[in-house]
Amino acid sequence: MSSSAPKAVVLLSGGLDSATTVAMAQSQGFDVHAITFRYGQRHEAEIQASYRVAAAFGLRNHVISEIDLRMFGGSALTSHDEVPKGRALDDMADGIPVTYVPARNTIFLSFALAYAEVLDARDIFIGVNALDYSGYPDCRPEYIDAYERMANLATKQGVDGEGKVTIHTPLIDLTKGQIIKVGLSLGVDYSITSTCYDPSDTGEACGACDACLLRLKGFAENGMSDPAPYQSRD
Amino acid sequence: MSSSAPKAVVLLSGGLDSATTVAMAQSQGFDVHAITFRYGQRHEAEIQASYRVAAAFGLRNHVISEIDLRMFGGSALTSHDEVPKGRALDDMADGIPVTYVPARNTIFLSFALAYAEVLDARDIFIGVNALDYSGYPDCRPEYIDAYERMANLATKQGVDGEGKVTIHTPLIDLTKGQIIKVGLSLGVDYSITSTCYDPSDTGEACGACDACLLRLKGFAENGMSDPAPYQSRD
Repeated sequence: MSSSAPKAVVLLSGGLDSATTVAMAQSQGFDVHAITFRYGQRHEAEIQASYRVAAAFGLRNHVISEIDLRMFGGSALTSHDEVPKGRALDDMADGIPVTYVPARNTIFLSFALAYAEVLDARDIFIGVNALDYSGYPDCRPEYIDAYERMANLATKQGVDGEGKVTIHTPLIDLTKGQIIKVGLSLGVDYSITSTCYDPSDTGEACGACDACLLRLKGFAENGMSDPAPYQSRD
Repeated sequence: MSSSAPKAVVLLSGGLDSATTVAMAQSQGFDVHAITFRYGQRHEAEIQASYRVAAAFGLRNHVISEIDLRMFGGSALTSHDEVPKGRALDDMADGIPVTYVPARNTIFLSFALAYAEVLDARDIFIGVNALDYSGYPDCRPEYIDAYERMANLATKQGVDGEGKVTIHTPLIDLTKGQIIKVGLSLGVDYSITSTCYDPSDTGEACGACDACLLRLKGFAENGMSDPAPYQSRD
């Protein structure tokens, strides 16, 4: 990546979607500055995966932001509540799941906005997806549009009129199978990514939570098996 | 405060503006849940003041959120850069000051939004002021309006249609003198608040930074001296 490439801040969780988003931002010529959050999630394996993904893409800039969302409670992802297992895909689209973390994307995007402002970057990428998992309010296109409008009033860039901040959501209209297809065409190594809501201590996926089931379906649609490690596949 | 009072999340820095905002929210009948941020600011005296203010108002709910904004740099308030001293009030309105922290209010409001969502609260109060200090982009009414619109698309409340989140900015059109007048009428004890950008280790205000000069002017407009401790007043 040449030093004259425009900078972009990319939210990197270490999962399949964000790894694909990094690949797409790089393929568009951006100098990717990744930001990962340790927010009290039960799946620390995500953080480890984010390091692997950043290394695989040769990112020189990757910050880990420590924020504690457990203080508010309200989500199975930041508590010891049970994560649903073995649900039918149709059921996932029904209502807001217990794995929803209150205002999570709003908080994540706000840190990305601060980082972009300091870098003088105009572009932020987030791998949200409205299709497979419509239950999260902060993954919808109308939410992203409203966020972008707010962001352009929040920052020096907006006041100076020097350039508009754009929130890129390259995955928003893609199925999981389509996301994987794009990623494979860009050389993403999905064996190093972590998607599971409830992985083992050594980072192996459970294969039964909503996130695993969607991921497995996506690989099946591409006629292949998931290269990432699972606890049990029988 | 009765348990049937509606809950409101109030951003509490420990300064004059936020203490007045707590008083105004209480006077409107809200059960105030305060949130204070330790964000790497050089003025830790603010945090101590927030505890004093919460105690003075008898708040049963006050959370301190730890977020590190120093990782991004970009502001004199989170670095060792010099804070301007002795500026004319007219100069303060000119451009974005070095004490501006990138996307700070956006980040603060996002945590407040998460807290409100968990509490099932519909009301968030922030003591921003557009009049005295117009250089901060994220203190302008159009920014607050855009934030509120985004917030109502971000959360369960917005999806369920169960109730709209309102961002209250009761100070936005008031001068510092008017803010103090309202606060005094509501019994605010300003001796326990901390506004200075560069206080001593024991929390005494410098009396010369922009924040001190505006505050001193506000008390002067009310024909009184500031009851808070200063390092030197000669």
